[in-house]
Amino acid sequence: MPQPIIYLQREFREEFIEKIQTIAPDYQIKTRLNEEELQEVEISVGWSKKYSEALLQSPQLKWVQSISAGVDYLPLDEFSNQEILLSNGSGIHALSISEHIIGVLLSYYRGLTQAVKAQEQRDWVQDTIHYDQLAGKNLLVVGTGHIGQQLSKSIHSLGVKVYGINTTGHPVEGFIETYSIKNLAKIVPEMDIVVGILPGTQETYHIFNSDIFEKMKKSAVFINVGRGDTVHTKELITALEEKQFAFAALDVFEEEPLPKENPLWEFDNLLITPHISGMTVNFQNKFMKIFLANLKSYVENKELSVNQVELERGY
Amino acid sequence: MPQPIIYLQREFREEFIEKIQTIAPDYQIKTRLNEEELQEVEISVGWSKKYSEALLQSPQLKWVQSISAGVDYLPLDEFSNQEILLSNGSGIHALSISEHIIGVLLSYYRGLTQAVKAQEQRDWVQDTIHYDQLAGKNLLVVGTGHIGQQLSKSIHSLGVKVYGINTTGHPVEGFIETYSIKNLAKIVPEMDIVVGILPGTQETYHIFNSDIFEKMKKSAVFINVGRGDTVHTKELITALEEKQFAFAALDVFEEEPLPKENPLWEFDNLLITPHISGMTVNFQNKFMKIFLANLKSYVENKELSVNQVELERGY
Repeated sequence: MPQPIIYLQREFREEFIEKIQTIAPDYQIKTRLNEEELQEVEISVGWSKKYSEALLQSPQLKWVQSISAGVDYLPLDEFSNQEILLSNGSGIHALSISEHIIGVLLSYYRGLTQAVKAQEQRDWVQDTIHYDQLAGKNLLVVGTGHIGQQLSKSIHSLGVKVYGINTTGHPVEGFIETYSIKNLAKIVPEMDIVVGILPGTQETYHIFNSDIFEKMKKSAVFINVGRGDTVHTKELITALEEKQFAFAALDVFEEEPLPKENPLWEFDNLLITPHISGMTVNFQNKFMKIFLANLKSYVENKELSVNQVELERGY
Repeated sequence: MPQPIIYLQREFREEFIEKIQTIAPDYQIKTRLNEEELQEVEISVGWSKKYSEALLQSPQLKWVQSISAGVDYLPLDEFSNQEILLSNGSGIHALSISEHIIGVLLSYYRGLTQAVKAQEQRDWVQDTIHYDQLAGKNLLVVGTGHIGQQLSKSIHSLGVKVYGINTTGHPVEGFIETYSIKNLAKIVPEMDIVVGILPGTQETYHIFNSDIFEKMKKSAVFINVGRGDTVHTKELITALEEKQFAFAALDVFEEEPLPKENPLWEFDNLLITPHISGMTVNFQNKFMKIFLANLKSYVENKELSVNQVELERGY
């Protein structure tokens, strides 16, 4: 009988390959697969579109360790039918995304985005610069998972009052109060900052729409670093045109890369970043902490010890 | 005998005028002065160039409350000769400047300055974006006064290790270690971030020069929010050209507004902001906290209770 395969969608440093082999000595490790090998993959680290169909047809596939936190791009129904375990990379990007959000907020409040543009014109814009203070603001984190908790911790220490939204409104440490997602529109009018960090599910699709935008303070800021399709892009464009709130920053989009002809590019009251908020230094170390912990428990008893995704829920 | 005058260089809200009058009922409050009144000014809030000569010739002038933190633009020698008390606005701008510095750092580390420029070109620059992590960095605060202490407190909570430089190297709460200014060049090679928050004095003139820039890490960031002339601009230009370190951000300059023809405008590895880091919301409240405290102690016993400037030292 051939050895089962651990397929790695991307390259990892030799030190990590050695650790994998030590924990799972009976497995072969592959970063490319021929047709026969496709039938022997038991563990897939990352998910390759190229191999998707073949892997799903293989009876050997038992566990997929996603590299990303979001897993809505994966064939969750088929994983469920075939009882394939799924774990995600949640937490790896938390610190980066938290730093990104704080950076975006202070760029706006301290007039830095304006200053960058003025510098290109050699323009000393002291009199027209917009400025405000982050400390003292009310911030609503929509999605109180790993990233939301890291953000809460960091930005609380800068004097921001942090509230949270999650599915049921269950309390989470570090949030002054948490509300159920059904109450989103009710809470929004009191907030200076609304940050979307939601996974892509049926419930979250287009949840940030005109109902929400119209209720925001005129001076408010909206940031999305969750899934692109949690934002109703057309209604956001209307909100930006009508200045329903003051400033938005999007790192994710319904279509990526954002097409050249998309009207979003033009707004002065919108900062576009090209899906970079999660980019993180020491990625391999952070990812391997999760994967190796899971590999150990999987080898021992076919269970995952961290970051297992509930397939029905989708996160 | 005419009533002594409190001269206010700028307008303040009625509530504050009333408070001044309550604390100092024997004084007149003026925001403009005729020739006779110039002779009766005892307290000057702010310093008007227009009235400078006349006020210095008046024997009545006893106390100048500067609105700014820096006082190097004032005739300190003449204040000293005439035993005129001086207090400054140190502390008012600390939170704003601290937020500005953190904003600048995260803008750089999270690629936001790059993203702003790319957006203008409708350019999805995911592959070329520079990113790094603020948490874990070593930061040197050169000048451990109000602003430096506020910065230390805030940025420490974001995972940054904060070191300080002051005149004698005396310890200051919130800094892992402090060093004497004589040791600046020795410490700089170990730092990821160097922030200048120095007042303008003979000792600090051009203290950030090629000796320092050459010793910085290639990956380091230099920020100046102190006095413009603490930086040797020509040597900074050389450092930027030769990429002696990675990124600089200047909010203050040897000449302001920065002239159109100044070569600094052109550098991609430099962020120019137009002396905005201290701009602060609720300025009047913050300033009046200082001034009213001093006015009370001045009326009682001709002493200042906060922010008195040592005229020989200059801060």
